[in-house]
Amino acid sequence: MASRILKTMRRTGGKHTVAPRLPMRAEAARPSQLRESNCRLLLNLLRGNSPCSKADLVRKSGLSATTVSVSIAHMTRLGLIEDLGDGESSGGRPPSLLRFNSSHGLVAGADVGGTRLRMMLADLNGTPVAHWATHLNERQKTPRTIVSLMQTGIREMMQQTDVSARVLHLTVGAPGITDVDHGVVLAAPNLQGWTEFPMRALVEREMKISCTVENDVNLAALGEQYRGEAQGVDDFIFIALGTGVGAGIFLRGALHHGADWTAGEIGYLPVYGMPREPVRLEETGQLERAIGGAGVEAMWQKALRRERRAAKADLMRLHAPEVFDLADEGHTLALEVTTETARILADAIGTLSLLYNPQLVVLGGGVGAHRTLCSATEAFLRENEFAQPKLRASSLGPEAQLFGAVSLSLSAAEAGLLC
Amino acid sequence: MASRILKTMRRTGGKHTVAPRLPMRAEAARPSQLRESNCRLLLNLLRGNSPCSKADLVRKSGLSATTVSVSIAHMTRLGLIEDLGDGESSGGRPPSLLRFNSSHGLVAGADVGGTRLRMMLADLNGTPVAHWATHLNERQKTPRTIVSLMQTGIREMMQQTDVSARVLHLTVGAPGITDVDHGVVLAAPNLQGWTEFPMRALVEREMKISCTVENDVNLAALGEQYRGEAQGVDDFIFIALGTGVGAGIFLRGALHHGADWTAGEIGYLPVYGMPREPVRLEETGQLERAIGGAGVEAMWQKALRRERRAAKADLMRLHAPEVFDLADEGHTLALEVTTETARILADAIGTLSLLYNPQLVVLGGGVGAHRTLCSATEAFLRENEFAQPKLRASSLGPEAQLFGAVSLSLSAAEAGLLC
Repeated sequence: MASRILKTMRRTGGKHTVAPRLPMRAEAARPSQLRESNCRLLLNLLRGNSPCSKADLVRKSGLSATTVSVSIAHMTRLGLIEDLGDGESSGGRPPSLLRFNSSHGLVAGADVGGTRLRMMLADLNGTPVAHWATHLNERQKTPRTIVSLMQTGIREMMQQTDVSARVLHLTVGAPGITDVDHGVVLAAPNLQGWTEFPMRALVEREMKISCTVENDVNLAALGEQYRGEAQGVDDFIFIALGTGVGAGIFLRGALHHGADWTAGEIGYLPVYGMPREPVRLEETGQLERAIGGAGVEAMWQKALRRERRAAKADLMRLHAPEVFDLADEGHTLALEVTTETARILADAIGTLSLLYNPQLVVLGGGVGAHRTLCSATEAFLRENEFAQPKLRASSLGPEAQLFGAVSLSLSAAEAGLLC
Repeated sequence: MASRILKTMRRTGGKHTVAPRLPMRAEAARPSQLRESNCRLLLNLLRGNSPCSKADLVRKSGLSATTVSVSIAHMTRLGLIEDLGDGESSGGRPPSLLRFNSSHGLVAGADVGGTRLRMMLADLNGTPVAHWATHLNERQKTPRTIVSLMQTGIREMMQQTDVSARVLHLTVGAPGITDVDHGVVLAAPNLQGWTEFPMRALVEREMKISCTVENDVNLAALGEQYRGEAQGVDDFIFIALGTGVGAGIFLRGALHHGADWTAGEIGYLPVYGMPREPVRLEETGQLERAIGGAGVEAMWQKALRRERRAAKADLMRLHAPEVFDLADEGHTLALEVTTETARILADAIGTLSLLYNPQLVVLGGGVGAHRTLCSATEAFLRENEFAQPKLRASSLGPEAQLFGAVSLSLSAAEAGLLC
């Protein structure tokens, strides 16, 4: 099904009837873009150094005093900057102190998972001010029900916070292949009715909030860059190892999506020892079968059966992270399964490294973020002379997607306010 | 050896004593950058539409009339634009016609191969005005000898052309891992004395020409984008299949180099059916062993031996492209070898596609650019639902590296002239 869609996409050159939002023009920068980029630069400096004087901003930005003055005036009119009055004098006239008004608006992020819908509300500093989550039963996984649940979520989060500002933007993370330009989810096999679904249009119509839709693993990568293990890193790969296996590719300071929005589908990478097979969208790929949650658990159960131990029943039911916990305690079989998982994961990172040569790989997801797995994988990577990126286990966990969503919402909200 | 270097690079964070040329600053655009980018835009329009009027440039560029006038005046002073006088009037005052002065300077490219040094001289339109090549014996492969040969090459090419302008920039392609920022070749196993060699510094000192050094496969990718099969394509992968196997990764309109300058080293990709082995820089990788020139020839010889045919001696000596030629004529064994090569290549492209999802893959190199191999590979790709990039055989052949070098030289020369 998803395959048919991708083929249609290719035939039509990926054109949808929904008009694209972000037309890219290979042209020189315009003065309006320059003003927006100057304002963004100053806002980011103010965020990190609030309160500070105009002189501080001139020094830190490298922009001219005139440009800084014009930009500050513009942003003060918009309500994004507040003048706190006189600061401490260092001799002459005391400088006026400026502060970024992070309560000028709110932004939201949502993560649609296979079993839960989670949301986060944040101020314009990206600081979370409220969380909300709900369990999803099978019937609730349609796009319309999700939108209606998100409306409830926003309402309930607004009640939790005392910031009484408008929600300027909502970013929705979808567990599937997503055309971000058009806000269309192309294929999300674990949900119902999401095939080629124009989610952004529905959200904007029903919720009256401007919206971005993005793949959930890509959002997690953004989240790690924004608030997690990849802060300040311009080239890294986030690997989500959970029920599914996928990667978010962050290059030169931005996500790499690919021509059909499928870059990073590493769940289909070949695994040593498995036979050659055609790659099919409807089927699970080799890497995912081998070391996705179910793969690790199958490996564990097979090892247990081989040993014919007593008290097997309890052990048989362990989830992948619990197997890694046991390995940490020295359990031989668990150690064996952890090592085998790490070996296969290291091979995949080896392949990623040959092609991308990233500075850093962040391991995330319910299975991947385990520190024991991370150390075991590092040991295998050292064997491979082309694959020595830094390896870090995610510390944000499932918050990564939400922080990623918030960071996209912030960018969109700023662009909307400043342009 | 190369491995030690990469490790040293990692330890020292890739720092050399040579100062980096291209410091990246995460700052807003400055007016001077804006002027340069406007000038570049106008130059490119003039290149494609010479002669044309100022009004044409305003219309095509979307820039204001004032900006266009200021930029034209600037570039006229520099000698980059010539005023041809009055054009044909469409009623009112006849417009003044402008032309890009492509003879204002020359640029050069060099490709250092395992057996030959080849060079190209081009005008500022990138049009080749002279070629030069020489065979390299073993003793001639040191950096110093190459520089001295390049001096001869430039001199002899200057005699071939009647453009009497200065060579503004030379780009040198090296068959090895190259730190482009510092102009240092880190490792080039097929040459002597190139390990961690500061080639740019030597060229600039000895030849008095500003210089860029880049990996040869990356240059071929650039060449395909500039004048070959990837013109107008912003995301594609160039695969060089020859004695060695490597890839040039072109993303969002620029080469992707990776953290240690090793992105695209696909010669080390695993091959189905080969046993798991650690990846070592000093050793040839699985994909290269399987379908590099020697790999294909070994496969062919093995097939011939199995058949115990008469007239074997001649056939045994065939090179990979000749085997593909035979396949084209219906020779059963040759067809078998071509199919097996295509299968392995398609698997590698499958892996590339999972990770990068490129629009286009260009096959180049002495083995890879063969149309029979290209068609056979396409057939295998159709089995893989995640790997359906367009596939094209390079039409530039070994000129690709030289055109890539010329394109880098042009960019550098323009930046030098306009800034």
